[in-house]
Amino acid sequence: MKFLRYTAAIAMAFCFALNAQPQQSNAFVPSEHGLIKSDREDGRFISSRRVLQAMLKNTEPKYAFNPAFSPAEFRKWQAGLRQAMKDIMFHPDIKNQPAPRLLKSEPRKGYTIEKWEFYPLPECVSTFLVMIPDNLQKKAPGVMCIPGSGGTKERLASEPPIEPKFDENYHNDKIDMGLSYVGMGLIAVIVDHAAAGEASDLEKYTLGTNFHYDGTARYLLELGWSYLGYDSFLHAQVLNWMKQDKRINKDRLIVSGFSLGTESLMVLASIDPSIYAFVYNDFLCNTLERAIVMTEPDKNGIRPFPNTIRHLIPNFWNNFNFPDIVAAIAPRPLILTEGGLDRDLNIVRRAYELAGHPENLEIHHYPKFSDPRSRIDLNTLPEGINRDQYYDLVNVDRTSHYFKAVTILPWMKKLLQRDAR
Amino acid sequence: MKFLRYTAAIAMAFCFALNAQPQQSNAFVPSEHGLIKSDREDGRFISSRRVLQAMLKNTEPKYAFNPAFSPAEFRKWQAGLRQAMKDIMFHPDIKNQPAPRLLKSEPRKGYTIEKWEFYPLPECVSTFLVMIPDNLQKKAPGVMCIPGSGGTKERLASEPPIEPKFDENYHNDKIDMGLSYVGMGLIAVIVDHAAAGEASDLEKYTLGTNFHYDGTARYLLELGWSYLGYDSFLHAQVLNWMKQDKRINKDRLIVSGFSLGTESLMVLASIDPSIYAFVYNDFLCNTLERAIVMTEPDKNGIRPFPNTIRHLIPNFWNNFNFPDIVAAIAPRPLILTEGGLDRDLNIVRRAYELAGHPENLEIHHYPKFSDPRSRIDLNTLPEGINRDQYYDLVNVDRTSHYFKAVTILPWMKKLLQRDAR
Repeated sequence: MKFLRYTAAIAMAFCFALNAQPQQSNAFVPSEHGLIKSDREDGRFISSRRVLQAMLKNTEPKYAFNPAFSPAEFRKWQAGLRQAMKDIMFHPDIKNQPAPRLLKSEPRKGYTIEKWEFYPLPECVSTFLVMIPDNLQKKAPGVMCIPGSGGTKERLASEPPIEPKFDENYHNDKIDMGLSYVGMGLIAVIVDHAAAGEASDLEKYTLGTNFHYDGTARYLLELGWSYLGYDSFLHAQVLNWMKQDKRINKDRLIVSGFSLGTESLMVLASIDPSIYAFVYNDFLCNTLERAIVMTEPDKNGIRPFPNTIRHLIPNFWNNFNFPDIVAAIAPRPLILTEGGLDRDLNIVRRAYELAGHPENLEIHHYPKFSDPRSRIDLNTLPEGINRDQYYDLVNVDRTSHYFKAVTILPWMKKLLQRDAR
Repeated sequence: MKFLRYTAAIAMAFCFALNAQPQQSNAFVPSEHGLIKSDREDGRFISSRRVLQAMLKNTEPKYAFNPAFSPAEFRKWQAGLRQAMKDIMFHPDIKNQPAPRLLKSEPRKGYTIEKWEFYPLPECVSTFLVMIPDNLQKKAPGVMCIPGSGGTKERLASEPPIEPKFDENYHNDKIDMGLSYVGMGLIAVIVDHAAAGEASDLEKYTLGTNFHYDGTARYLLELGWSYLGYDSFLHAQVLNWMKQDKRINKDRLIVSGFSLGTESLMVLASIDPSIYAFVYNDFLCNTLERAIVMTEPDKNGIRPFPNTIRHLIPNFWNNFNFPDIVAAIAPRPLILTEGGLDRDLNIVRRAYELAGHPENLEIHHYPKFSDPRSRIDLNTLPEGINRDQYYDLVNVDRTSHYFKAVTILPWMKKLLQRDAR
């Protein structure tokens, strides 16, 4: 069954090439040029893009997880990965900035919402929202909520948008991360992404929530930083605030990331061992492999980037890939909500076994792929494919990418009850 | 006169804003949003793009030239800049690669043209052309010719294109760098840029010489390298070949860069003190300042990048800017062919004075701006401008950007005669 489905996907991949016989012999057929192979005996390439393809294929991440680790090796690897993440994220050590300041506090139905301002860099002010359940008896777990691309903290908090153009028609139950958590008695602390929402530039006049993250990313890269380094640095400052807030139980800090928000989650998880648990609301994939296999050009002969420079972190792939980083979270409680390839998820499963707490990991797939027989199960992806083929091969149901309250809330409730002592 | 011309340019800059009174009060007028200013008392920004604007403005290049240097301080600064350039270019130390190989040698009118293959990296083969004047009596100076964007080594050598789509209608006398040099008795060694010409990918089927440099640049950046680091590494290998070729006088190595080629020139000049002289065929500018002032958004509210990620070198601006690097070439012979702001050119002039050889520097402007009274002479550029305004303010005549044989050849002839002993 798996094999049949895989064969069908591959057959689809080549069917355009077969059907679309060029009218003229020199017409450019993109799918005929997806695969990159040397035509020389020595295997070298003269095309720089193809040289880079070979260099990508030769890249061995220094902190690749090894399922054969002993428990001691696992811990040593974990510490190395932590340091490497610190090294490439370049979080600065900023001193003498003012303390965060409460801007306003307003009652809502069943909770209070606060807006805070903080000062992560001498040039910068940033904001976050806090949702505190009514009738708090004792310190409560605190969950940092990080939106996806195009998301704002106001949307996650079910608050009106700060700009009319940021108002979008969305299903509340598929986005209201903050409301969901506060409803179960947690304190929800909700952040924006850098360059998004209140931190955007001129989008309130023009593009709305189609935020131009890359303008910020480009200049960060020029200065030797990166979008993710900056974004996660801001979020780390909010986490520091959570640790000292009197209402929050600092032994029960949770980070909940949706889509783009899982990237900052991975950084925070790596660099801060004091965080208690994680909600990874996305599919898990190997991004280096994605870059290697997704090489089918467009009609202009341009091979795609898997994503924009917002995701460009110099030396990331030399060190690790997403499944390695997520594996290094073990044994801390973690839920993954939207699957991926079992091959990648098994890396995480193995890490939790090695760390002695397989019960602290819960993995869900997109509902469409919840039955293992419905999933493609590959060890190696074929090279030369396009974006749609890639998503099909790694079990992504793009119509079903949202805040998965249905799996997350019961998991978190059970977890907090288990550990409530 | 200078002031008048400047005032006219600034007035032009705002005239669109004045004429185009919005029909609706909420229409977005880009020119009204060029300038980035904090509206807070503490001067902070909440918009990430604006935070980055402040960070760019606070960036102090470590190796900024100081006109008050003593000669000893100048030499120390020069050595520091050299090391910093090596550090951020990441040229690898590759061993055990095959020696370069002659592929073919063909007679032309007055010279022989050779094509060579070399092996800069285990994954990579690359090529260069050599033009050798007939009747060589003794070792001749060797000049490395580096094309501009969209250029190929074949065009610079007046050879037929390697692909039909790379054939462009161009004026020979404005591009034939190689032919010009070989005509005056030099050995011309001509290279491609990474991702261009023979090193391009699928452009021979589609875009022709509109090469997609960024596909290569992106993956280089991911791996902790950069387009310029890779490009200049390839060119450095060709330079190494030149040093050992029996026909070339290794004490008379010259690097001649056109447009994009000046970037590799600057790297080679910085890291290799054995190069004798340089032809910088472009205008000179301060690229950090360009990024700071060129912030007028487009109709979608997106502020421009001055250029593509082909030019993104992490930590470049933390270390230096183009005028600093060019100043550090002193006292080696140098001609700049297309001017810029006198402010920036004066940095280079001062360096040559400090180094004791002002006679080794020759500076020309675009013909349109050869009369000093026709040039804008600013110390500070206004912020919030667009690309056209920027070029106008720094004396760039975009219709006149080509190989300036008319100034370069007499300069080089005189120089080589002077130093011929």
